[in-house]
Amino acid sequence: MDLSERIEGIGYSPIRKLSPLADKAKSEGLRVYHLNIGQPDTRTPRCGLDSLKDIDRTVLEYSPSEGFLSLRRRLSEYYAVYGMAYSPEEIIVTTGASEALLFLFLTCLDPGDEIITVEPTYANYLSFAAAAGVKVVPVATDIADGFALPSPEVFERHVTDRTKAILVSSPNNPSGCLYSAEEMEGIAEIVRRHGLYLFSDEVYREFIYGGAGYVSAGHLKGIDENVVIVDSFSKRFSECGIRVGCIATKNAAVRGGMMKLCQARLSPPLLGQIVAEASFDAGEEYIAGVIREYEHRRDVLVEGLRQIPGVTVPKPKGAFYVMAELPVDDADRFCAWCLSDFEYEGATVMMAPASGFYVTPGLGRSQVRMAYVLNADDLRSAVSVLSAAISAYRCLNRL
Amino acid sequence: MDLSERIEGIGYSPIRKLSPLADKAKSEGLRVYHLNIGQPDTRTPRCGLDSLKDIDRTVLEYSPSEGFLSLRRRLSEYYAVYGMAYSPEEIIVTTGASEALLFLFLTCLDPGDEIITVEPTYANYLSFAAAAGVKVVPVATDIADGFALPSPEVFERHVTDRTKAILVSSPNNPSGCLYSAEEMEGIAEIVRRHGLYLFSDEVYREFIYGGAGYVSAGHLKGIDENVVIVDSFSKRFSECGIRVGCIATKNAAVRGGMMKLCQARLSPPLLGQIVAEASFDAGEEYIAGVIREYEHRRDVLVEGLRQIPGVTVPKPKGAFYVMAELPVDDADRFCAWCLSDFEYEGATVMMAPASGFYVTPGLGRSQVRMAYVLNADDLRSAVSVLSAAISAYRCLNRL
Repeated sequence: MDLSERIEGIGYSPIRKLSPLADKAKSEGLRVYHLNIGQPDTRTPRCGLDSLKDIDRTVLEYSPSEGFLSLRRRLSEYYAVYGMAYSPEEIIVTTGASEALLFLFLTCLDPGDEIITVEPTYANYLSFAAAAGVKVVPVATDIADGFALPSPEVFERHVTDRTKAILVSSPNNPSGCLYSAEEMEGIAEIVRRHGLYLFSDEVYREFIYGGAGYVSAGHLKGIDENVVIVDSFSKRFSECGIRVGCIATKNAAVRGGMMKLCQARLSPPLLGQIVAEASFDAGEEYIAGVIREYEHRRDVLVEGLRQIPGVTVPKPKGAFYVMAELPVDDADRFCAWCLSDFEYEGATVMMAPASGFYVTPGLGRSQVRMAYVLNADDLRSAVSVLSAAISAYRCLNRL
Repeated sequence: MDLSERIEGIGYSPIRKLSPLADKAKSEGLRVYHLNIGQPDTRTPRCGLDSLKDIDRTVLEYSPSEGFLSLRRRLSEYYAVYGMAYSPEEIIVTTGASEALLFLFLTCLDPGDEIITVEPTYANYLSFAAAAGVKVVPVATDIADGFALPSPEVFERHVTDRTKAILVSSPNNPSGCLYSAEEMEGIAEIVRRHGLYLFSDEVYREFIYGGAGYVSAGHLKGIDENVVIVDSFSKRFSECGIRVGCIATKNAAVRGGMMKLCQARLSPPLLGQIVAEASFDAGEEYIAGVIREYEHRRDVLVEGLRQIPGVTVPKPKGAFYVMAELPVDDADRFCAWCLSDFEYEGATVMMAPASGFYVTPGLGRSQVRMAYVLNADDLRSAVSVLSAAISAYRCLNRL
């Protein structure tokens, strides 16, 4: 009764090892600033929350396997605002972007197939790929140039005869990097030339700062059949718990394949779909307010971090994460130490060691990811704690 | 850009081909009695529905990947009532039994491994198995003895060196069969002898009629490490749409493996968990009322069907389905014809052809599954329509 090889291939992310340490620190009365998680603290739109009070059903029954038509219509209209042309029939509602990704891998890729993505990458891509028996081939990006996409030539060097797909995410988790039109066009060219799928995880679409231009994979010309957009309501409306996302693609075969799995799992969450649809009523103002707040937080965090000697941190244009290089020997060890052996004015800080975001062992060894999902004052305090922690750790370890 | 072989291996169930015919019949003004789906028409408990109105949160955030502790505590207490000893730590909340099954296959089985189950079987097992690259090895059961489990000797003949698990469901979908203590003990013996997993889908646990005794896989002695219970709130509380289920197992390795996938997909539905937990407050009375109603419907349907010449139908002791043998040449064809070319007093009937529930081609060719999720009057009317349809079809086809 062994477990499957694929499940053995999924590593526990380093962050999960830290959780017991954080719990212990809290139980000892320490305040822990959580910079480790992507759970926004912004409010869910009132109209989304209120939709729950208005539910007038006597049976909470299955919804259609492809999701409610009314929700797919709203999504279609929403995409149109971004210049992305997807009809309701080209959209399938999923149980979060997570289910979308797993089902997409199972639908499009055979065991042994390869999928190219950048590293650092979203750790759960690796889990879903392992579950599907798919090999993730990483293209390294560099903190020195803000984790920008490598040139198409570098990308193309990773294409083999087992390559079936490229997976991109812009704005990116964990790097916060926003890809330019030129970078996205470079990817499109490779996709076109080699006949690959392009899976584009666009769950942070709104989270763009400083008026930077946005390019969706849905904007790229001539690869309509290759592109599958992966999306989610979680971050946009701060409703991670509703578990509603979608895929959008013009590729009918992919939709047909996905639907086999969607029908097997019967339906996406009924209640979450109701909240998601209602949340669109929050309108531009809601999102604009959220983005203003995150932009401010980003500035506070990045400026604070840049005051700490030896810290390197790009100023990302999107999402709500920064990846920082710290003057420590081992970020896994340092992050654990912050929780287990350090405090500053009754507080400490929890960060995600970057090792969980890299495929290649040893890369990003001194890097951490920080999510700016705390208010600006807490971010300033967290930076002070981190600064003191770095000094103490360096002194203690004679760095 | 081909689809994966595994997805090509998932067949569309015959019922899905019938849906457009049913839509057309309805658009032409016909009343269609839906005996084809397992969506209960019974009311969701009031306390479950009301819990939505009481949600006082400003952020609909992620819940723990393993599900809320409070919900797992209620589940643990609920199992104790059934004489099943699972602590909250031995329970993982999933997005319906569907996710539980898929994740369980991915966790415990490697591509090429075999899983033994009876046929007719729940069609979605086949889809999830195909997605996981796992081969389903069917043990045939016979309508003539009410789809009872074959002897342990027959079962054991299907064990090979690739067999990793046996999958049972009692009360069974699609047959409605309830397995006796002796039958379950026979399975336990094989599981014990060959060191197999025993996956037990128990989503119809409450749906037992005539006071028949219930044996859960959780009752079987000496195979605690082998057994994984798969469960769901969908049928029990008529809340299929909330997408909340669970697994319960004493096998820590299986829980650990499942948790890797559960953490990758972040969390089960927040809102569904709130409804599920509140629904337990409905108490014994709610379930007792539901069961009385279904038992009455079962009797009405079975007695009605037995009046139709040439129809064979066991009187199942559980779930809310009957499998019937009809005096027709091909149930796929007959079911389609009922929707496309037949009407009786302005109505017709939609049933699930059994071919989708059999793995072995050709088996169950004249059988259909009927779900008694309509009230007794509608069931009587549906039987009248079916009786007229069989006569007309036999006449037309010179049977």
